[in-house]
Amino acid sequence: MARRKKIYEGKAKILYEGPEPGTLVQYFKDDATAFNAEKKATVDGKGVLNNRLSEFFMTGLNMIGVPTHFIRRINMREQLIRSVEIIPLEVIVRNVAAGSMAKRLGLEEGTQLPRPIIEFSYKDDALGDPLVPEEYIIAFGWASQQDMDDIVALALRVNDYLSGVMYGVGIRLVDFKIEIGRVYEGDFMRLIVADEISPDSCRLWDIATGQKLDKDVFRRDLGSLTDAYTEVARRLGVMPANTPNTSKPTLIN
Amino acid sequence: MARRKKIYEGKAKILYEGPEPGTLVQYFKDDATAFNAEKKATVDGKGVLNNRLSEFFMTGLNMIGVPTHFIRRINMREQLIRSVEIIPLEVIVRNVAAGSMAKRLGLEEGTQLPRPIIEFSYKDDALGDPLVPEEYIIAFGWASQQDMDDIVALALRVNDYLSGVMYGVGIRLVDFKIEIGRVYEGDFMRLIVADEISPDSCRLWDIATGQKLDKDVFRRDLGSLTDAYTEVARRLGVMPANTPNTSKPTLIN
Ligand SMILES: Nc1ncnc2c1ncn2[C@@H]1O[C@H](COP(=O)(O)OP(=O)(O)OP(=O)(O)O)[C@@H](O)[C@H]1O
Ligand SMILES: Nc1ncnc2c1ncn2[C@@H]1O[C@H](COP(=O)(O)OP(=O)(O)OP(=O)(O)O)[C@@H](O)[C@H]1O
Ligand SMILES: [Mg+2]
Ligand SMILES: [Mg+2]
Repeated sequence: MARRKKIYEGKAKILYEGPEPGTLVQYFKDDATAFNAEKKATVDGKGVLNNRLSEFFMTGLNMIGVPTHFIRRINMREQLIRSVEIIPLEVIVRNVAAGSMAKRLGLEEGTQLPRPIIEFSYKDDALGDPLVPEEYIIAFGWASQQDMDDIVALALRVNDYLSGVMYGVGIRLVDFKIEIGRVYEGDFMRLIVADEISPDSCRLWDIATGQKLDKDVFRRDLGSLTDAYTEVARRLGVMPANTPNTSKPTLIN
Repeated sequence: MARRKKIYEGKAKILYEGPEPGTLVQYFKDDATAFNAEKKATVDGKGVLNNRLSEFFMTGLNMIGVPTHFIRRINMREQLIRSVEIIPLEVIVRNVAAGSMAKRLGLEEGTQLPRPIIEFSYKDDALGDPLVPEEYIIAFGWASQQDMDDIVALALRVNDYLSGVMYGVGIRLVDFKIEIGRVYEGDFMRLIVADEISPDSCRLWDIATGQKLDKDVFRRDLGSLTDAYTEVARRLGVMPANTPNTSKPTLIN
């Protein structure tokens, strides 16, 4: 059996050729990075948790008719996804001021926003994923006006749904980032949610205590990242089996 | 202290004059009715559970910017609400075929619908709350076309959010009914979610077992309604204190 072809290795995930055309295998690593990879570490079991949690959220979104790239989980660290043409944007939805927005505007972290605010960063590591006005996005042709309208509608539905998922288990969805990709079906192009949805890409605060249950635990050295992600998984009934961490991607075909 | 004035007594709730103009006190009774009140019973503690659960869901909706009538809970059985002009419609959102839709179309209960389907019943007990096409609603002036567009948008947001809340605790939101009311703010009219959101007004199926956790337990004699509602409350961390059931509405001023 031949080794699958590696398509891309990023900071947190690896993409392999999928078993069928139009599919990919997404492998979740244990690597954690922050501040555009200035800070790095290996966090035991993070990949397993994110694989499971992204499966859980994407499955839920698929169920309510928000299309995502998720097809099925293959094993502890891998999932089968639809291959998409990634729009080079980080689509960020914020309910509460935190992180870069709090800094940029001099707002106290935790300030409730008047309504959900959507912002876009241009995905370019060399530039540090800079925030960009919608005007730039259209002008440079990264997405059309129609795409942007669709992306905003998708992002708001994801926000309503994920806010509900989190609220049901006592967690405030402060903000999150998604990536959107294009798939072609005959003559039609559709936009779907891609990449991952996990505590790496959300800010999650315990409603009762304010405790952070997301990647800020790593960014700000607030304790065990595995414990935080495990707590999120436990509340949602997403139980990553306590099986050994396979350090190498496994074969699926 | 004078007894508060009773405004309306329905099958499941009583409305009293509120402490300030524009407010009402909504009292949750233990009475359960089904099939347009042909079947009746008293279910110990149902009112307490529904008061808490409606508070929980409406608070969540308020937080994401879906306006509701909920102001605050007063005690075990009462909550303070904004007084609205109720639009005489039951706004029903269905994700899965069940109940009257399954019957009307000869669909098996549990059939996944292609997308969320919204339908409207005209609120009239004497007529048995008949299903009505949108055309009737506009023609008879119960709501305008603009109202209906806003109602559909509201109902879909409630569906996304509540689907998330339920999914996070292993429950499928099969369908639900809301009522919408008008509030006037200066020259402006706004539509807000009124009445209640509770297992009386939703169909809730355990995802793992298919067990019903809603009023169908009463409609179809499937066991203890209190146990079912308590299970929903327990999963959501909504803990109705095990204090005695006050059989009479209490005074708040
Ligand atoms: N369904 C998909 N099809 C194609 N590419 C995808 C899909 N989902 C995610 N991707 C891309 O796969 C990569 C995932 O790897 P990872 O998240 O580790 O990258 P990264 O180091 O964060 O770099 P980047 O800044 O590109 O996200 C990202 O570039 C992401 O845009
Ligand atoms: N915020 C509000 N302002 C005014 N009326 C309200 C508000 N919320 C709910 N109501 C109305 O209060 C009543 C609640 O009582 P209940 O649900 O027991 O009535 P019911 O017996 O089901 O009769 P109905 O068919 O009118 O709902 C309903 O008529 C409902 O429309
Ligand atoms: Mg990435
Ligand atoms: Mg009623």
